[in-house]
Amino acid sequence: MLIKVLTLLLLAKVSFVASKLTEIVDLTWDFSNNTVYWSGIKPFSYTKMVAEDRNGYWYSMNEFCAGEHGGTHFDAPYHFNKEGWKVADVPITRLVAKGATIDLSRTETKSLAPKHLENWKRQNGEFDPNTFLIIKFGWSKYWNNRNQYMGIDVNGNMDFPGISAEAATWIVNSRKIVGVGLDTASVDPGRSSEFMTHRILSKNQIYNVENLKLLEDLPEKGFSVVVLPMKLKDGTGAPARVLAIPKNYL
Amino acid sequence: MLIKVLTLLLLAKVSFVASKLTEIVDLTWDFSNNTVYWSGIKPFSYTKMVAEDRNGYWYSMNEFCAGEHGGTHFDAPYHFNKEGWKVADVPITRLVAKGATIDLSRTETKSLAPKHLENWKRQNGEFDPNTFLIIKFGWSKYWNNRNQYMGIDVNGNMDFPGISAEAATWIVNSRKIVGVGLDTASVDPGRSSEFMTHRILSKNQIYNVENLKLLEDLPEKGFSVVVLPMKLKDGTGAPARVLAIPKNYL
Repeated sequence: MLIKVLTLLLLAKVSFVASKLTEIVDLTWDFSNNTVYWSGIKPFSYTKMVAEDRNGYWYSMNEFCAGEHGGTHFDAPYHFNKEGWKVADVPITRLVAKGATIDLSRTETKSLAPKHLENWKRQNGEFDPNTFLIIKFGWSKYWNNRNQYMGIDVNGNMDFPGISAEAATWIVNSRKIVGVGLDTASVDPGRSSEFMTHRILSKNQIYNVENLKLLEDLPEKGFSVVVLPMKLKDGTGAPARVLAIPKNYL
Repeated sequence: MLIKVLTLLLLAKVSFVASKLTEIVDLTWDFSNNTVYWSGIKPFSYTKMVAEDRNGYWYSMNEFCAGEHGGTHFDAPYHFNKEGWKVADVPITRLVAKGATIDLSRTETKSLAPKHLENWKRQNGEFDPNTFLIIKFGWSKYWNNRNQYMGIDVNGNMDFPGISAEAATWIVNSRKIVGVGLDTASVDPGRSSEFMTHRILSKNQIYNVENLKLLEDLPEKGFSVVVLPMKLKDGTGAPARVLAIPKNYL
């Protein structure tokens, strides 16, 4: 009982978040030749083609190449599920969603567990249908240092926070959450080699957004999220633009 | 007087549109190796890297290359204005906008003129501040035939509808419209060689969306539009996802 009370107090303490969203927040990192990509994925590269004064006017245009999975990007269920939706197949109603936030950035935890989800429910009630769930580990502050961001340890292995398989199962069973986003390079923790969270979520048509830019506090609920991936017909994933929007803004 | 009355009647007749938006409409063509690009712009190309069963799970991922200006895409003011905003600089509040539609798809007109804008105002009152204006020429039905879509004539020249320089100036002077989108390959009509509409709009920090997918009727006003380009730091343009969203949906 004492342990339970202490746990509740601890969880209450760590769930500090803004009480209300008052303006649109862009949760997207920009794409440039410096954008963080997973090793083995073709990084974003930019080719400046034209930037010149012509007869009386300026004209400029560029080309770019990239893998689907880098920077702030969308994982379609098809990424880890052969029967899953590709990017352009995901129903548009799931991309305009209710926002919910679990903020673990003031803790040392590197793994979202069912207890964090239960705690959110204790404080906020049931998740809304069609929820996009944001997990904030406070990792965005490392964005400009790839080694820190990927949590490269002395042996060269990755170690950054993510979502446990148990939490992924909890999310699926909630039947309320249609997408999950977080401020690290993968929904699976960096130490994962089995990618169970990707597998569990994608099997249930839940999409992910990785590398969200979460520099500000977001409310635990009561806002909207628009998640718009580039509409890649056969996409396993895609660069995405993600906004948190105050309720009743539109 | 008679001419004026006839003109009003004609304009009234041609502005047939849906009265109210009841669900989200995706105004975006998907990107594939078949997506229409302007000649001289690197077309979208997809490379399928992995699509295989691994030990107990499916894994797939792709790479792609493209110019900024093809498919449903965003023109940043910097495209034609050296001092203009690049893609990632455009204030996010301008990308979550009030929607307005001028539907010319039941007419033969190939050029938006000030009279069409005046007529919209006569019927709907002043444009809302922060409006994204959609011009529908009915051109989306040609999307799958590049020659028809670009309006290639017997001499090989392009001839598709667009926005006249006079209408562009009207839009700038309205001080209400922050972005303009249409269902053709350029805001300038296909026959343009001076690109005056691009120049006038971009000089005034008004962004464009070209190649909107406009297969359905949209209301003349009373809905929202979310225009989310891929966040290219130095972008002169970018692939964009564009949604029309019913009022009070969020």
